Amino acid sequence: MGDKALVLLLVSLGVVAAPAGAEDLAEPYRETSREVLARAQADTRAWDKLAYLTTRIGNRLSGSPGLENAIAWAHEAMQGEGLEAVRLQPVRVPRWVRGRESLRVVSPVPRELPMLGLGMSVGTPEGGITAPVVVVRDETELEALGRAKVEGRIVAFAPDWEGYGRTVRFRSSGASWAAKLGAVAVLVRSATGRSIGSPHTGALDYAEDAPRIPAAAITVEDALWLRRMAALGETVRVTLQMEARLAGEANSANLIAEIRGREKPDEVVVLSGHLDSWDVGQGAHDDGCSCMAAWQALTILKQIGLRPRRTLRLVLWTNEENGLRGGAAYREALGAALPSHVAAIEMDGGCERPTGFGFSLARPGAARPRRGESQPAEPTDPGAVRALARVRQIASLFDAIGASAVRWGGGGADIGPLMRAGVPGLSLETVGEHYFDWHHSQGDTLDKVEPEDLRRATFMLAVMGYVLADIEPRLAPEPAAEPSR
Amino acid sequence: MGDKALVLLLVSLGVVAAPAGAEDLAEPYRETSREVLARAQADTRAWDKLAYLTTRIGNRLSGSPGLENAIAWAHEAMQGEGLEAVRLQPVRVPRWVRGRESLRVVSPVPRELPMLGLGMSVGTPEGGITAPVVVVRDETELEALGRAKVEGRIVAFAPDWEGYGRTVRFRSSGASWAAKLGAVAVLVRSATGRSIGSPHTGALDYAEDAPRIPAAAITVEDALWLRRMAALGETVRVTLQMEARLAGEANSANLIAEIRGREKPDEVVVLSGHLDSWDVGQGAHDDGCSCMAAWQALTILKQIGLRPRRTLRLVLWTNEENGLRGGAAYREALGAALPSHVAAIEMDGGCERPTGFGFSLARPGAARPRRGESQPAEPTDPGAVRALARVRQIASLFDAIGASAVRWGGGGADIGPLMRAGVPGLSLETVGEHYFDWHHSQGDTLDKVEPEDLRRATFMLAVMGYVLADIEPRLAPEPAAEPSR
Repeated sequence: MGDKALVLLLVSLGVVAAPAGAEDLAEPYRETSREVLARAQADTRAWDKLAYLTTRIGNRLSGSPGLENAIAWAHEAMQGEGLEAVRLQPVRVPRWVRGRESLRVVSPVPRELPMLGLGMSVGTPEGGITAPVVVVRDETELEALGRAKVEGRIVAFAPDWEGYGRTVRFRSSGASWAAKLGAVAVLVRSATGRSIGSPHTGALDYAEDAPRIPAAAITVEDALWLRRMAALGETVRVTLQMEARLAGEANSANLIAEIRGREKPDEVVVLSGHLDSWDVGQGAHDDGCSCMAAWQALTILKQIGLRPRRTLRLVLWTNEENGLRGGAAYREALGAALPSHVAAIEMDGGCERPTGFGFSLARPGAARPRRGESQPAEPTDPGAVRALARVRQIASLFDAIGASAVRWGGGGADIGPLMRAGVPGLSLETVGEHYFDWHHSQGDTLDKVEPEDLRRATFMLAVMGYVLADIEPRLAPEPAAEPSR
Repeated sequence: MGDKALVLLLVSLGVVAAPAGAEDLAEPYRETSREVLARAQADTRAWDKLAYLTTRIGNRLSGSPGLENAIAWAHEAMQGEGLEAVRLQPVRVPRWVRGRESLRVVSPVPRELPMLGLGMSVGTPEGGITAPVVVVRDETELEALGRAKVEGRIVAFAPDWEGYGRTVRFRSSGASWAAKLGAVAVLVRSATGRSIGSPHTGALDYAEDAPRIPAAAITVEDALWLRRMAALGETVRVTLQMEARLAGEANSANLIAEIRGREKPDEVVVLSGHLDSWDVGQGAHDDGCSCMAAWQALTILKQIGLRPRRTLRLVLWTNEENGLRGGAAYREALGAALPSHVAAIEMDGGCERPTGFGFSLARPGAARPRRGESQPAEPTDPGAVRALARVRQIASLFDAIGASAVRWGGGGADIGPLMRAGVPGLSLETVGEHYFDWHHSQGDTLDKVEPEDLRRATFMLAVMGYVLADIEPRLAPEPAAEPSR
């Protein structure tokens, strides 16, 4: 191996910075990046848009007037800003309706418990379900109890907090695990590390081979209380009442706008967030802030007059929270045109202080990683190694705000179908200090968003999107055109 | 002024430590204090008691079975521990019942708002009160609006957070301020700096010259949302439904136990917390932890065999939260025996990491300080200066755990009647980082209490109580025996 080859290898591995003469993707964009930063730092429109969305429109569950109002408002505003190819991509979405709901301890000491039914849950019969609660920390404890101790009871999953990725499995799968053993309903510790009596909702995922039983989130406080009562040998009886139901489907849409590419308009970089939210709080961090940052990123590039080589496409997805129909419809519509997609960015981790990006590049058709599955710290595939090094070069433009870290692993649920087909996927990463405190709860509101963080995210999405769309080489070789899945 | 007089003055002012030969109240108690610390650090019973109280009994509003269960349980347990003069002091308490309650935005975008009716509030008519909301930040803004813009409306107080002492006035007095201008109900920002969609209740105080209108706490998030809606010129209409009512009075009691004094059994130091709580959460920090720490402090002294010169009297007050009847009944029963009281300690600021004590000594009959009123950093009255210096000497025993700070100002609501009659009053002080995040909400639960903090509080209450009861000089001269008020 010659010296030059060694340098290139080390550069591609991100071990050394690119020396003069070697590829440095960031260098040609430093002045542009400074200009975008100045614009973003003076910007008040992203905030104004987020304030409108959260204050006037409010939360935005699929199938609700809130979501359709948000789409209509943003659609019109994008046209007013002169963005290109502004359009709606129709998507049918499930319509889940919460209805009235309550959870009451019947004995030994009656009281109301704060709760939120889990999204997509079935309801209870009128009059509710009254049964003793059996408390488990995890699926192993549940299995150990067996049908004899679970049948006819309400199972409460009261795990320790091991981070969202690991703890959310009880919300997703707990209902079906318990139903297979004859449980009549489940209560699940909210997937959060901090709580002030705050229930957090989120979707469950019924298995096909289990009865569908009602499921509700309880607070961290009450999950721990149930554990202590169980440890004392006390049986707690509760009445769970939920009117929740699936009310068919509704029309919705992905909202799309572009800056068309000046040289290769048919090659596309996607810049995105999801406009839908849960039906509590305001969907400010999840994911209104991201939508507004991505939108304003495009608007700022347009205002500056920057037109990248390829097309930069803003997509505000519908139905991330309870169906992922938006991402699926987009992939489906692409069909054999998939190789046109150079990269896809999704911001969906809230708008705390950004630290950089996450990056993934899967071999097409690779298995979907399971939630909470650990991932190697760095890639081994040579193509992924090269692409990651390129993203790190570009991210050096964010040194100016101390946000140039790029970790291996990242992406988003809506761009998942693209990523699994081999499209490079990126996510904006933040300090993630409080996101899951607020996520899916009444606490996810505008007052939790720092305007400065929103400005930084806007800058980073604009520059990352622009540079990926503009650099001469594709970030990674074309994924093969495979049939959509 | 001679040298010795100067030294004594400086010592009494706390400017210099007491030299050999001068008064040093702590010195004779260093070994005892170490012994109590060792006991408290090995203690698990304060925690077990608090776990029982919060887990098995739960919250404890005056007039509820919860409070009476707690009193009966503690009464029996104290007798079992061999504490002396264990007895109940009967107290009639108000019985306020929350009933069902809800708050719903009717327009422009319907949704349910998390809420908690304020304690002692009247209810709404059946079917609720539906009216437009007028939003103010404070009483000045309310007055500026005048009757024309307030009459027939629901006033929302949406102040900035200026700390509990200043912000709580809207909860206490807002209903009557608004009612005088014709408002039909009030909504009040919860008195907390942090929120995850968490309403906080607490007592209101109706003025005699205003109509009694229903009042409810809303979350910080919704208070800020209402402010933003008002700034946009949007009128929000809500329906408030509350079944709240005063249901007469109930029998309750202060629970008392003692270690009788070996020399002056008729002189008394009171060590206390309040056993009642609001009707949400578990009353863990407010004020279960304090009751269990004070109780266990007495038990540990008893177990060690320490019998102070004077009587050390544990009092677990009833009805601190919505009436202060326990403290009033105790003072009333004392009558002319008031001068027997050497000092009164109340812990009622939660059980975060202790930092020391607060201390007050009022001239008898001095005006009750108004909530939020600022207080001079140090006393000027020579008697108070001397007593404060003595408390600081004693508190040097808490250097061992970094908790020897004594600030001027302190005490507690239940010992207020004693303090206003001239009895020195002390409060245990903590870092106070999160107390008001949890206070009066579903978040005030056992999982928020650190066992180590409870052990430290137990140690400090035991030593402060013991030394105040044992030192040869009274902490301060006898207050005059004045008629009870």
